[in-house]
Amino acid sequence: MMGQAQGARLIGLDWGTSSLRAYLFGDDGHKLSESSAPSGVMQLQRLIPPENPHIKTEKLFEAALGEVCDPWLEEAPDLPILACGMVGSTVGWKEAAYLQMPLSPSELGKGLTTVLRADGKPVHIVPGVSSPGIQGKTFPEIMRGEETQIAGILATRSKSDSVAPGPLLIGLPGTHSKWALVNEGRLVSFSTFVTGEMYALLTNYSVVARGANPPERLHQASFRQGLMSGRAQNGEAAGGLLSLIFSTRSKHVLGELKAEQQPDYLSGLLIGDELAGVQRIMTREKLALRAFSQIILSGEKSLCERYQLACDLSLWPRAKIIETAVEKGLWSVAREAGLVE
Amino acid sequence: MMGQAQGARLIGLDWGTSSLRAYLFGDDGHKLSESSAPSGVMQLQRLIPPENPHIKTEKLFEAALGEVCDPWLEEAPDLPILACGMVGSTVGWKEAAYLQMPLSPSELGKGLTTVLRADGKPVHIVPGVSSPGIQGKTFPEIMRGEETQIAGILATRSKSDSVAPGPLLIGLPGTHSKWALVNEGRLVSFSTFVTGEMYALLTNYSVVARGANPPERLHQASFRQGLMSGRAQNGEAAGGLLSLIFSTRSKHVLGELKAEQQPDYLSGLLIGDELAGVQRIMTREKLALRAFSQIILSGEKSLCERYQLACDLSLWPRAKIIETAVEKGLWSVAREAGLVE
Repeated sequence: MMGQAQGARLIGLDWGTSSLRAYLFGDDGHKLSESSAPSGVMQLQRLIPPENPHIKTEKLFEAALGEVCDPWLEEAPDLPILACGMVGSTVGWKEAAYLQMPLSPSELGKGLTTVLRADGKPVHIVPGVSSPGIQGKTFPEIMRGEETQIAGILATRSKSDSVAPGPLLIGLPGTHSKWALVNEGRLVSFSTFVTGEMYALLTNYSVVARGANPPERLHQASFRQGLMSGRAQNGEAAGGLLSLIFSTRSKHVLGELKAEQQPDYLSGLLIGDELAGVQRIMTREKLALRAFSQIILSGEKSLCERYQLACDLSLWPRAKIIETAVEKGLWSVAREAGLVE
Repeated sequence: MMGQAQGARLIGLDWGTSSLRAYLFGDDGHKLSESSAPSGVMQLQRLIPPENPHIKTEKLFEAALGEVCDPWLEEAPDLPILACGMVGSTVGWKEAAYLQMPLSPSELGKGLTTVLRADGKPVHIVPGVSSPGIQGKTFPEIMRGEETQIAGILATRSKSDSVAPGPLLIGLPGTHSKWALVNEGRLVSFSTFVTGEMYALLTNYSVVARGANPPERLHQASFRQGLMSGRAQNGEAAGGLLSLIFSTRSKHVLGELKAEQQPDYLSGLLIGDELAGVQRIMTREKLALRAFSQIILSGEKSLCERYQLACDLSLWPRAKIIETAVEKGLWSVAREAGLVE
């Protein structure tokens, strides 16, 4: 491990609900090393005894930081540290601001919140983004972490000369999937779908689909079948999502769906319902999918590939997957904030 | 407890996923006594060691039966026993048949499955009802237990001279809510919604609404707000149920919804989505709500009252709550089967 931090410029932290991932960046945001721990915000919160929440919180967050970064900080103790994600929420290390839309990613670097470690050195936290919503028209919305992914996607695109500056639809699949609209380089709106969490709840705890282990490879026919039902609001899908979900069980009990097909069928139902919702939101906003120069997907690779297939099966414009968006975003925000040159 | 079983004619068991309820009936189905235990089918299954499933299952079911019925059986060992619900499923005591629709409740009594106790005396199990579904038009559907509730509702109605014999819409709210269409005394179709299970999953385990304890009294304004959003598919509700569910959290984080209002708001969202689904199914079947002489609700009382309010707020015909439907149904099926005179 010795010598890793030589020439390092920044430590970036992607600190979410269920995990902590740390990146060591050199000149120009070149990634020198990375490290991770299952020390997500919810994991740390579960370690806190109710009788003395405040002191313990800080210690737990600092210990988790040390776990992933100490080898780097021992070599280079003055490296700036920038974190994004749920670490800036009410259940995080310190509450960071929410910025309002429309928002240019360059504004993120000017809105950092700082928390001091025991040795007095700072950890900077990227602000989230919120929207109050418009009564009867749009829901209030919040994000923490995805704004940094979006900054990374836009930084990647601005380097590429061949990319048109037209409106952009960005899908960020995950526990709480976000779909964001970017126009002229600014985030203008986004919507959240609890698709990943719903899948986890149903496969872990429900009578409907518990114990149905996901197969190693995607069962494409089952996924497609679920997706098409999830996208529809008529015919057999007339009853809506609560009825669709039950079909995962009834089709299995009546021999139409094998146990190993249930997870991908259910995944298809949920992603199909999400994509239908994105399309209705587009219609509400008087936007057409073909108006977008590109659809971008960013997140865990195999999940993005699943969404890419869903876009294809839905006859959407081809979606492009950008990995490493959060790394690019952390570097980009650090540069705007003057943490690196 | 002595003397309870004097003049008894039947033991009826409502044996579901999470609980076992036993009724002791006298002449004409008059209820003499009742008893219950948390020995639902899933509870018993969790006690079974994987290495020896078969023998244990029978013993566990028989022990649970003894727990609720032994005081009665000691006095009257030859009382007939009739059970309905998940006890007849693949994870129950013995798998009972599924009958097909259209179905008159009188046919249930002719399709009983029998399992013998250690002393050789029988327990009779009411068949469930299934529908294979029509590809692209309707989903496969299954019920176990609700068919007995429906038999009880129809038995109650046939005694009442003032009731018109027109088509009937029956809502059976619960873990898996069912909505059934009855015409000319026969069950013709039904649909299932995982509303109750979804509510339990979200309030017990989710990041979105976990820890939000239901208040003692319904928070009607929050329920109404959720219901109206859940029923809509446009405006702020354009994103569909997965987006609606997230609003339980975003509204809370942004100060629009207090923690104690979250459960009833979420309950409203889910029931609203269910009722919208029921209406779309009606439209698919070319039926109008006003074509029904009555809407009947049967199930746990406070839950039925919540659905009754939801029907009122949705401007549906006034729904009538029938309690004790499963008791009436068990007696009615036992009579058709010749277990009682």
